[in-house]
Amino acid sequence: MKKISLLLIPFVVIFGINAQSIKDIQSVQKPLLLKAQGSFYVGGERLNQTFEQLGSFGPAGNITVNQMYVHYMIPQKIKGLPVIMIHGMTLTGKTWETTPDGRMGWDEYFVRKGHSVYIPDQVGRGRSGFNQAVYNDAKAGKIEASKVPSIWRFSDETSIPNFRIGTTEGNPNAEGKFPFEALSELSKQAVPDISMSLPNPNPTFKALADLSADLGKVVLLSHSQSGSYPLDAALVNAAGVGAMIFVEPGHCPSGLKPEQLSVLTKIPTLVVFGDYLTQPTGVPHSWQTAYDGCRKYVEEVNAAGGKAEMMHLPEKGIKGNSHMLMQDKNNLQVADLILNWLKGI
Amino acid sequence: MKKISLLLIPFVVIFGINAQSIKDIQSVQKPLLLKAQGSFYVGGERLNQTFEQLGSFGPAGNITVNQMYVHYMIPQKIKGLPVIMIHGMTLTGKTWETTPDGRMGWDEYFVRKGHSVYIPDQVGRGRSGFNQAVYNDAKAGKIEASKVPSIWRFSDETSIPNFRIGTTEGNPNAEGKFPFEALSELSKQAVPDISMSLPNPNPTFKALADLSADLGKVVLLSHSQSGSYPLDAALVNAAGVGAMIFVEPGHCPSGLKPEQLSVLTKIPTLVVFGDYLTQPTGVPHSWQTAYDGCRKYVEEVNAAGGKAEMMHLPEKGIKGNSHMLMQDKNNLQVADLILNWLKGI
Repeated sequence: MKKISLLLIPFVVIFGINAQSIKDIQSVQKPLLLKAQGSFYVGGERLNQTFEQLGSFGPAGNITVNQMYVHYMIPQKIKGLPVIMIHGMTLTGKTWETTPDGRMGWDEYFVRKGHSVYIPDQVGRGRSGFNQAVYNDAKAGKIEASKVPSIWRFSDETSIPNFRIGTTEGNPNAEGKFPFEALSELSKQAVPDISMSLPNPNPTFKALADLSADLGKVVLLSHSQSGSYPLDAALVNAAGVGAMIFVEPGHCPSGLKPEQLSVLTKIPTLVVFGDYLTQPTGVPHSWQTAYDGCRKYVEEVNAAGGKAEMMHLPEKGIKGNSHMLMQDKNNLQVADLILNWLKGI
Repeated sequence: MKKISLLLIPFVVIFGINAQSIKDIQSVQKPLLLKAQGSFYVGGERLNQTFEQLGSFGPAGNITVNQMYVHYMIPQKIKGLPVIMIHGMTLTGKTWETTPDGRMGWDEYFVRKGHSVYIPDQVGRGRSGFNQAVYNDAKAGKIEASKVPSIWRFSDETSIPNFRIGTTEGNPNAEGKFPFEALSELSKQAVPDISMSLPNPNPTFKALADLSADLGKVVLLSHSQSGSYPLDAALVNAAGVGAMIFVEPGHCPSGLKPEQLSVLTKIPTLVVFGDYLTQPTGVPHSWQTAYDGCRKYVEEVNAAGGKAEMMHLPEKGIKGNSHMLMQDKNNLQVADLILNWLKGI
């Protein structure tokens, strides 16, 4: 249980994490001045479902699925493009909010730096909901249970090495920057991932493209599973995509067609990776392979006249970063590097 | 698709809802000044799950379930108790955010009135995630598909009469206050409700009690399915429960034991109902019966020395309110009545 004690002393907010018997004190902050904040949905598809598909609760009828929830904050003084931050696998928009150890997330930091920030939950996850019909159909015997798509979760034992936080519980990477003492809070951020039952293409791509175009010109910033989503969105409609930032992408695409490359070369792109790329992950995925593939993508885009850049933090002398860069102890230092790159595009 | 156009003209934010070809213009607002905002989890239980239960994706191991996501905003100038707003069935914390037609939600309005606001997703819903094991177990043949708990959804055709918005699509209640033109946006707020697979008692009760106690003294404000959750939380631990507000509760409890009544009589309680209580709902639920049960509860609490109050809006001359009071066109008028009641406790 995360115990939150908000002592209402001006300028001081104290967070305590009960399970770990530690207290993290957020240092003095200036108040946050917002022009606006709120939430809305993008996209969505109306489907007619049966009584059984709706859980045998209310009469048959239409529901909406494949919509994308988006929370936003707009700073009073705007100093750059809006940034849409897209989370990774088995996670939600929570990724970008308060860190597991109670520090400021990238959402607020980017707002404080003058960027409007939009945080979606991927279609099928979190507040975006999912299409439950297939599970209820199996219960009702309408389809074979074995045909129901799997729902994915990572165990903590998988996340620790695969997110390059450490090797096993109690064994963080030496000089690792992830707040290892708050690992149980990262575990709470994980939710079921029903990607296997989404339509193809993933409706999140079009939702991101539509949101970008509606906002005029934006930065699409992705993470892990969503690594190449900005690119997928740009290939649906590049009108609103002003820049792409892939943070620790699970993979970068290869074999792009010339007409695709001609779209992507017009969009400044940054790829960011942390440390420990060769660490064994315990799953059939290698971060070094992901890194190598992204380096090739960057070279391909640049060879075609684009402006793409690899940022491997250890090469900048910044060591110890995990896959969860935005939650690492130096998360604001990494954010500053990204913000600085944005100033230069 | 909800089209959001944020023209960055000072003090004017324009929302357009594409599907409906309308433009709703939020009027001039003062900037929102926050001492802090962010999110965290309360509670959670660690479970060891098999390879199959985790969706046959990563190795077996421990995950966290039954945690409760909470988003919060703390105003710079505090003028009252923190308010925890708990959403209803098949919905999430989105209930309290920007309304379907793009107006300010109760979350921001209460903050602007000086209350810190905490918005959870009920355990098992939205960013709180859910325990997916049972669905994957059925797929793997470990349990019979027919034994899998149902996942609930309301169709739009059910919501319209049951939420007392209208009778059918295209037929709003005469003088109804719900923004009927934005009905498709309400539909997008609905997500699968896995209440049937939650442990008993619902872990949300203890999470609310723990959060309340951690914050010192709070107002628990509930809606619909969560109607009596404040009371359930208080019966777990009343230490942090300073007041309870049931907005359109699905039901109020009866047959309370003397030792339970002695807890509840110490907590000022308000029950709020809108209009059209006798309208046919199309489901086996009557709002008039809910209202009558709550009136009895209020009488019982007051007879035992408590301080409980019914607020039936039509009796105050406020007509046309739906079940979704916090999204109705006069949502801030209704909020003011609640805020005024809070000043008097």
